[in-house]
Amino acid sequence: MSPAAGTLYGIGVGPGDPELLTLKAARLLADAPVIAYPAPLDGASMARTIAAPHIPEGRIEIAIRMPMVEARFPAQEVYDRAGREIGAHLDAGRDVAVLCEGDPFFYGSFMYLFGRLAGAHRVVVVPGVSALTATAAAAGAPLAARNDVLTVLPGPLPEDALIERLARAEAVAIIKVGRHLAKVKRALEATGLAAGAHYISHASMPDQRVVPLAELETDKAPYFSMILAHRRGEAWS
Amino acid sequence: MSPAAGTLYGIGVGPGDPELLTLKAARLLADAPVIAYPAPLDGASMARTIAAPHIPEGRIEIAIRMPMVEARFPAQEVYDRAGREIGAHLDAGRDVAVLCEGDPFFYGSFMYLFGRLAGAHRVVVVPGVSALTATAAAAGAPLAARNDVLTVLPGPLPEDALIERLARAEAVAIIKVGRHLAKVKRALEATGLAAGAHYISHASMPDQRVVPLAELETDKAPYFSMILAHRRGEAWS
Repeated sequence: MSPAAGTLYGIGVGPGDPELLTLKAARLLADAPVIAYPAPLDGASMARTIAAPHIPEGRIEIAIRMPMVEARFPAQEVYDRAGREIGAHLDAGRDVAVLCEGDPFFYGSFMYLFGRLAGAHRVVVVPGVSALTATAAAAGAPLAARNDVLTVLPGPLPEDALIERLARAEAVAIIKVGRHLAKVKRALEATGLAAGAHYISHASMPDQRVVPLAELETDKAPYFSMILAHRRGEAWS
Repeated sequence: MSPAAGTLYGIGVGPGDPELLTLKAARLLADAPVIAYPAPLDGASMARTIAAPHIPEGRIEIAIRMPMVEARFPAQEVYDRAGREIGAHLDAGRDVAVLCEGDPFFYGSFMYLFGRLAGAHRVVVVPGVSALTATAAAAGAPLAARNDVLTVLPGPLPEDALIERLARAEAVAIIKVGRHLAKVKRALEATGLAAGAHYISHASMPDQRVVPLAELETDKAPYFSMILAHRRGEAWS
């Protein structure tokens, strides 16, 4: 890469509350000439909405639009095109800030751009507050403590894989619960973890919801939902 | 609790870079009449040093001093005393902000105050950027992606427990490496995870160090060190 080439910034904008953005993210956004972010086919980008107070007018913006449907993810051709567009800005000497919900390297879609661009371009990742710790804050209970083993399990895993992992787990966060809620509940019940578990959706956002899993009536959950459980019931006891 | 009682804020100040503080933490610190933080027996508190630019002069400060020695942790009597002192401020109607390195609920010592004070006082936890994601940013590699199972393992665990967990792990972060480095290396080697592993100390700080585990010569590591490994070698491949 040439010394005059731009830098790709992967910027964690935090879990949803705009105040959970870092000072570093705010400073970099004020300076970046090009700002890119994931977005649904229609409507507003969550990541851009979170960061909106820090994006000056008149910047070049790249909305990476794709269907927000689990089965269609990732849309390789969408990332190929976005990677080429961003790469052209970098080659022209313009820094590009890619907005990432939560943290760029914690189950983030930033990895698809990173995989395409890191070889030929300078990349700086600015970590953000992840949904993982924001969810624990919302639940009002430590995620993990002392010498706990913490296991993060994606809800889309098959039920037998969930049960196998949960049977040996101490502190657990199940992410990407969404339409897998009923299966995840069964797996927690089968492994003795359901009693103390909490369901949390939209952590740190105005519609944040915290419900003991046992009291949860619906079998559908939004994509931004998580279940926290602990073998001891309470991590701090 | 009375409506006039103060609120206990557990504030994540991030992994070390003062710019990785959140806007919310900065705002709350500007307003809090009492600020508490863990500190060594002698010398400066890391958490206070990170947050220093946001602490106005003339605030009541409570340094919770204790030996920074693993075997002595936690010093129950130190937290008992700090809990009483903080509780008295809350009862008197003063908000108290407790500074926490990283995130308060991710293996943080805040849990010891939380356990003592949450029953009788209003508590708000402000999540912060954890050392976990700051370390992945420093290493320049995704921590976990897609449907990876992520396992966070404390280095103080016995070698056979580490080996048992690592044998089935996909994405791994080993925290609290410190004086357990040699044992952790052996466990990673025994489970085929050593080749692609990276050692990272002081992520986001001026003395940040990122070294492939295979090239690491010392068998001693600072407390603020972590090892990241992935069964696939690279999470984004």
